[in-house]
Amino acid sequence: MANSIGTLFKLTTFGESHGPAIGGIIDGCPAGITLDIDAIQAELNRRKPGQSAIVTQRKEPDEVQFLSGIFEGKTTGTSIGFQISNTNQKSNDYSAIKDTFRPSHADYTYSKKYGLRDYRGGGRSSARETANWIVAGAIAKQLLSKIEINAYTASVGEISVDKPYTELDFAQIESTPVRCPDLIIAEKMITFIKETKKKGDTVGGTIVCVVKQVPVGLGAPIFDKLHASLGHAMLSINAVKGFEFGSGFNGTTMLGSEHNDAFNPDGSTKTNYSGGIQGGISNGMDIYFKVAFKPVATLLQKYDTITATGKSVSVQGKGRHDPCVVPRAVPIVEALTAMVLLDHVLLHKTSTL
Amino acid sequence: MANSIGTLFKLTTFGESHGPAIGGIIDGCPAGITLDIDAIQAELNRRKPGQSAIVTQRKEPDEVQFLSGIFEGKTTGTSIGFQISNTNQKSNDYSAIKDTFRPSHADYTYSKKYGLRDYRGGGRSSARETANWIVAGAIAKQLLSKIEINAYTASVGEISVDKPYTELDFAQIESTPVRCPDLIIAEKMITFIKETKKKGDTVGGTIVCVVKQVPVGLGAPIFDKLHASLGHAMLSINAVKGFEFGSGFNGTTMLGSEHNDAFNPDGSTKTNYSGGIQGGISNGMDIYFKVAFKPVATLLQKYDTITATGKSVSVQGKGRHDPCVVPRAVPIVEALTAMVLLDHVLLHKTSTL
Amino acid sequence: MANSIGTLFKLTTFGESHGPAIGGIIDGCPAGITLDIDAIQAELNRRKPGQSAIVTQRKEPDEVQFLSGIFEGKTTGTSIGFQISNTNQKSNDYSAIKDTFRPSHADYTYSKKYGLRDYRGGGRSSARETANWIVAGAIAKQLLSKIEINAYTASVGEISVDKPYTELDFAQIESTPVRCPDLIIAEKMITFIKETKKKGDTVGGTIVCVVKQVPVGLGAPIFDKLHASLGHAMLSINAVKGFEFGSGFNGTTMLGSEHNDAFNPDGSTKTNYSGGIQGGISNGMDIYFKVAFKPVATLLQKYDTITATGKSVSVQGKGRHDPCVVPRAVPIVEALTAMVLLDHVLLHKTSTL
Amino acid sequence: MANSIGTLFKLTTFGESHGPAIGGIIDGCPAGITLDIDAIQAELNRRKPGQSAIVTQRKEPDEVQFLSGIFEGKTTGTSIGFQISNTNQKSNDYSAIKDTFRPSHADYTYSKKYGLRDYRGGGRSSARETANWIVAGAIAKQLLSKIEINAYTASVGEISVDKPYTELDFAQIESTPVRCPDLIIAEKMITFIKETKKKGDTVGGTIVCVVKQVPVGLGAPIFDKLHASLGHAMLSINAVKGFEFGSGFNGTTMLGSEHNDAFNPDGSTKTNYSGGIQGGISNGMDIYFKVAFKPVATLLQKYDTITATGKSVSVQGKGRHDPCVVPRAVPIVEALTAMVLLDHVLLHKTSTL
Repeated sequence: MANSIGTLFKLTTFGESHGPAIGGIIDGCPAGITLDIDAIQAELNRRKPGQSAIVTQRKEPDEVQFLSGIFEGKTTGTSIGFQISNTNQKSNDYSAIKDTFRPSHADYTYSKKYGLRDYRGGGRSSARETANWIVAGAIAKQLLSKIEINAYTASVGEISVDKPYTELDFAQIESTPVRCPDLIIAEKMITFIKETKKKGDTVGGTIVCVVKQVPVGLGAPIFDKLHASLGHAMLSINAVKGFEFGSGFNGTTMLGSEHNDAFNPDGSTKTNYSGGIQGGISNGMDIYFKVAFKPVATLLQKYDTITATGKSVSVQGKGRHDPCVVPRAVPIVEALTAMVLLDHVLLHKTSTL
Repeated sequence: MANSIGTLFKLTTFGESHGPAIGGIIDGCPAGITLDIDAIQAELNRRKPGQSAIVTQRKEPDEVQFLSGIFEGKTTGTSIGFQISNTNQKSNDYSAIKDTFRPSHADYTYSKKYGLRDYRGGGRSSARETANWIVAGAIAKQLLSKIEINAYTASVGEISVDKPYTELDFAQIESTPVRCPDLIIAEKMITFIKETKKKGDTVGGTIVCVVKQVPVGLGAPIFDKLHASLGHAMLSINAVKGFEFGSGFNGTTMLGSEHNDAFNPDGSTKTNYSGGIQGGISNGMDIYFKVAFKPVATLLQKYDTITATGKSVSVQGKGRHDPCVVPRAVPIVEALTAMVLLDHVLLHKTSTL
Repeated sequence: MANSIGTLFKLTTFGESHGPAIGGIIDGCPAGITLDIDAIQAELNRRKPGQSAIVTQRKEPDEVQFLSGIFEGKTTGTSIGFQISNTNQKSNDYSAIKDTFRPSHADYTYSKKYGLRDYRGGGRSSARETANWIVAGAIAKQLLSKIEINAYTASVGEISVDKPYTELDFAQIESTPVRCPDLIIAEKMITFIKETKKKGDTVGGTIVCVVKQVPVGLGAPIFDKLHASLGHAMLSINAVKGFEFGSGFNGTTMLGSEHNDAFNPDGSTKTNYSGGIQGGISNGMDIYFKVAFKPVATLLQKYDTITATGKSVSVQGKGRHDPCVVPRAVPIVEALTAMVLLDHVLLHKTSTL
Repeated sequence: MANSIGTLFKLTTFGESHGPAIGGIIDGCPAGITLDIDAIQAELNRRKPGQSAIVTQRKEPDEVQFLSGIFEGKTTGTSIGFQISNTNQKSNDYSAIKDTFRPSHADYTYSKKYGLRDYRGGGRSSARETANWIVAGAIAKQLLSKIEINAYTASVGEISVDKPYTELDFAQIESTPVRCPDLIIAEKMITFIKETKKKGDTVGGTIVCVVKQVPVGLGAPIFDKLHASLGHAMLSINAVKGFEFGSGFNGTTMLGSEHNDAFNPDGSTKTNYSGGIQGGISNGMDIYFKVAFKPVATLLQKYDTITATGKSVSVQGKGRHDPCVVPRAVPIVEALTAMVLLDHVLLHKTSTL
C-alpha cells in the first residue's frame, strides 16, 4: 500500500510536516538484536535541516522516540513504533499558498485526486517524511553489519565526479557538507550551490550508491529482482527522476562482447558492468547505482502560477528551503538501500528449507 | 511476491522456456468487459520470435489459450488463467551449458541462490516469460480504452532518435521491424543490428514510452508513486539497466527556474519536464519515460568462462538469439505500462467513497 | 504481515502495555470524510478499563491523539497516524513473572519464538492492543454510515440468551455493564461474574454480532470470502477460540431441504441460515455470527507453574484483571467488523470498471 | 487477493468447473526438495468424485500436470504452475439454471456483484476449485515431513464421534469411505448418508483435524496468529459455517482455573485446552480444531425458487451431487492445514537473523 515498503522487513509511515509529529511502524524486524540508538540518531543528524550553509536553515532537532518493540535494548520481534516531533512548524500565514498551486509541486495533483489537501508545508508530500526512512534504514544497517553501504554526491548541476567510485576514498564523504568524496569537485559544488541559492534558484544532481560485501543470492526472479526493489525505493524519494545500476544508460551503447563480465575461477568477475546483480540476484560483486534528482521546485523568486479556480497570479517564493536536495539525500539513499537489502536477506532465508 | 505484479489488477506467472508451457493468472480483472481475443494475439505477435530478420529466428506461434475467467466473451470478475505452449524446445544437447556459467547470465546467481537450476534455455530467467506479460497487458489496454500507450525504439547502440517524441509520428512505429518511428534512423538501426549479428555480437538500446489521455489522479503518495510503479515494472524486464521519466538524468543539470512547469489556467502546464507526474500522481499531461537495455549476454562467438567447479573453459556460443532485444521489447514496455496504469486506475477508485 | 489487517483500508499497529504508548497507522482511508472525533472517543470509552464493577479496576483514560491524515476535520486520503498513551503502567516489581511462564498465556511461546520477551504486563500479547482497533473501527463505522453493526454478550459461562437476535432490543445493549440486551439474563450474568471474581477465578462467554443494511456484493470468491475475513479478524482477538456464522455448528445437523434459504421474489430470503453471506458474498440479508471467548488466563488465585529454566514454582496471582473479557470485547467485535466491511466495500468498488 | 492464500508459500488459483481446466501457481516453494508426484496424485484421489457410493458419481480422473518449477524431480525455487483438466463437463442443457437462482448457492450473489455469472456447474463457486488446494497441500505436506496432519469426519448430521481424538486410531480413517476412524460410528454415518441420498436430500457434518509434532514458534502476534490463519483457510472451504480450536465453544463455559493448561517441567502441558496454540503461536502440543459444514445446497428434489427477473418457479433438482461433502472434505482440510503450517514455518525462519 501507499505508505508501506518491504515484504518482510516492512516500514509503514505517517505524518505531515505541520502536524504534531511524523513517525512509523517497522514490522518484521528480527528479534534479539541490540540496537545502538545513538547510531540511529547520528543518521538522522546527517539528514536534518540546518546542518550546514548549503541546506535549508530551518532548525529541527529531529529526535526519534521509540515507543515499542525494543526491550532492555534489544528488538523483541514485535512491531517497532517510533515518532519524531515536529517542533518547528511556524504558525505561518499560509493564505498565500492555500488557494494557489505551486508549479511542479504536488499541490495540483493532491487537490485533484483527493478533493482537498493539507496545504501547510506541502502536507504529506513534504520531504520531511524521509526522516522516517532514516530511522528504519539505520536499524537495517545495524542488522546488516557486514554489508557496507556508501552513497555520495556524484554531481550537482553540470559539476560532476569524473572518477569511477573505485578511485574514491569514501572516508572523505562526510568531510564536506556536500558529501562528495572528491574534495576538489566538492568545493566547486559548494560554490555553485551557494551561488544558486543567492539567486533564489535551485539545482539538481545525482547520487551514486555503492554496496560492498553483499552475499550472493539476494533478490529473486521476475518481479522481486533486487535492482527493481532498489529502483522502486529510490524512485520513491522526493524529486527523483531516474535510476540506473551497473553500466546503466551508458551500457546501451556497448556491444555484448564488451559488456559481458568474464568470470574469475572463484566466481567473481573481471569487470562489473552488471553492477553486482545478474538475473535480478546479487552475485557478490559490488552493487552500484545512480539516482537522478531534479532541482527543487520551491524557488525564492517571483513566479507566475494559477489559483485553485484557474486565475493567473504572481507569487513571491519565500521561506527556508534547500537550494539543492542532493547533500541531504545521501543518507536517505543509504537508508532505503539498507531497508531493501535487509528485506531481501530475510526473503532469501526462505528460498530453501 | 517474486512472481506477481500489481495490487488490485494482479498478474502471477509461471514457466520456463523448456517446460511444456508458460502461463499466468490475472486476479482482479473487473467484470463485464468484452475482450477482443484477436487483439491480444496481435500483441503477442508483436513480441514473438521469428517476426523479422533482425530478431531471433526461433519459431514459436505463441498462441494464448484462456482457461477461465471469461464467459461468453466477457470477463466474469474471477481469476483469468491462461497458458502459452512451448512448441519449439529443441531436444538440445545442453551438456555444454549444464555445468558452465555463461557470463552476465543468471546461471551463476540462480545456482548459488537455489543450489540448482534448470539450465535448459535459461530456465525461469528466459525472456520467454515476457509473453505472459503481453497477455495481461493486452487485456489491460482494452480496459484502458481511452488511454493511448505508445512505445518505440529510441536508440540502438549510438544510433539515436534526436527529435522529441512530440515531433514523431507514432503511426510509423510498426512500419519497420526495429519499431523506430523516425524512418531514416530506423534504417540505420536495422543496418547496424544486422552487422552486429553477423559478428555474432549483440547491442543495446533504449525505448521511450509515451502515454496520452491519462486521467488526473493516478498514483499515490510515498511508496505507490506512479513513476515508482512504472520504474519497478520496467526494471523487471530482462536486460534493463535504467529508467528515467520526464526530464530524467538530463533534468539534474537544470535550474529550478528552468525546470518548473508553469501552469496554464486550465491546469495543464506550458512545459512538461515533470513527465506527467507530480508528487507521484498523474497531472493529466503526457507521461513519458525511457528504459535502458544492455546488449544481450548471449553471443554467437567464442568466449572464456568457468564451470560450476571453477575450471576455466572456452565456449563457442551458438543457437538462435536476438542480436538486439529492443525491437521485441517495445510491446513488452507497453504491456507493463498498461498493467501498471490499470492497477492505479482501480486503486484510485478507492481514494474517495 | 503480523501487525496489519486489511487490504485497502489497512490498519498497522504497535505497542506494549508498558511502553510509553500504543498506536497505529490507517492506510487507505478514503479522503474527504468529516470525522466525529468525539464518537471515536466514545467507542474507546466502551472498551476502557475501570468502566464498571465487573471489569478490571485499572484506570486508563485511553485518549486517542491523531497525528496525521486529518485536516480541518476531514480525512485527506493520506495515512492516519494515532496514538494512545499508556498512563497507568505501575512501576511494578515484575521479578515474579520475569522468569516464570504463566499457564495459558503467551509467555512461553513468545520466549521460545523470539528468544526473549517483554514480560511487563504481557508485552505485545496484552489485550491493550485492542484499543488501537477501536480507533480504526470507529472511523470505519463513520464511513459505513448506513450499515448498522451491533454486537452483544450472548452468554457468560452457562448463562445464555435463548432468544434469537431478532427478538432482542439492541437499544438495551448498553443498559447494563455486561452488554446483554436481555435484561433478565444480563442480571444473572453480572451476578455470576461478580461471584467468579470473588473467587479470583475467571469465566468465558460468547458474543453475537449482527450487521444490518449490508449492500449486496461484499466479499469475493475463494480466499476473500466475507465470512473468512470476518473469521480471521475475530480469531485475532485475544482469548477467542471459535467463530461461526449463520447456522454455524448447529447447521451441521440439518438437512439441506431444511437449511436452504428459499427466495422471495425481491431476492431476499424467507429464512437466513446463510447468515447473509452466500458463496462468500453478502446477499443483503442480515449478517450474523458468534464468537467464543475462553476464560481469561490470569487468575487471582494461587497456581502452580514453571520457571524459564523448568523449575516448578507456586505463584500467587495478583493485580487488576478482568474476571470476564466478554463485556469489554463487545465494542472490539464491532470495531473489527466495521474494518472488515469497509475494506470489502472499497474492494467491491473495483469489481467493475 | 481473492484467489491467493499464503504470505511466503503462496497459492494462486483459477478455474471453473466447466472450462477446459483448473489450476494454480505456487510461489515461494523452497528449492531443492525432491517431490513425490505419486503422493500428490494419491491425495487428489482421496478428494476426487466417484470414489465411493456415498459421494457424487461423477467421474473425473483429476490428474495433475506440472508445468514448471520442478526440474529433474526437484523444486527449483521458481513458481510451480500446474493444471487439472476438466474431462467430464457434460454438454448439459443449462437453460434451466441459466436464468434461475438456486437457493443458498452463489448464483444470486455472483450475479449481483459482477453483473453476470458463468452458470455452468456453479462456475468459480464450484468446489472443484478445492482440487487445486489438494495439489499445493500435498506439496506442503512433503516439505513438512516431520509434522503429522490427520483430519477425520467427526459427525454427520446428529451422528457424532463421542471419543476425544486421543482415543482414536487414525490408521482407520481411510478404512471406510466416510473417513471416520470410529468404525461403528462410521457405519452409522454411511447408512444415514445413503438414506439421505435416496430422498434426494443432503446432510452436513464436522471434521476434526489434529496436527502432531508441531515445532514451537509458528504463528505471530496480532494478525498472523496461527489459529487465525487456520481459521481463515478453513472458512474458505465451500459450505463451511464455523471453526473452533482447542476447547472451542465448549471452553466458554469453563472457569479459568479449569481451563488453564498447567505446565510440565519440560514446557509441555498437562492438559491442552489451548489446542497447541498460545498467544497465536504454537507451543509444541497437538494442534486440533473442528470445522462445521452445512448440508450441500444442491438437492435432487423439487423446490421453489425465483428467476433472475424475480418470477417464482418450481425446479426439479437433478445431476450427480454429493449427499454429504464431509468425507471428500477431509483431505481438503488437511491440504489447507499443511499450506498454512508451511507458510508459518517459512515466516518463522525470519523471526531471528
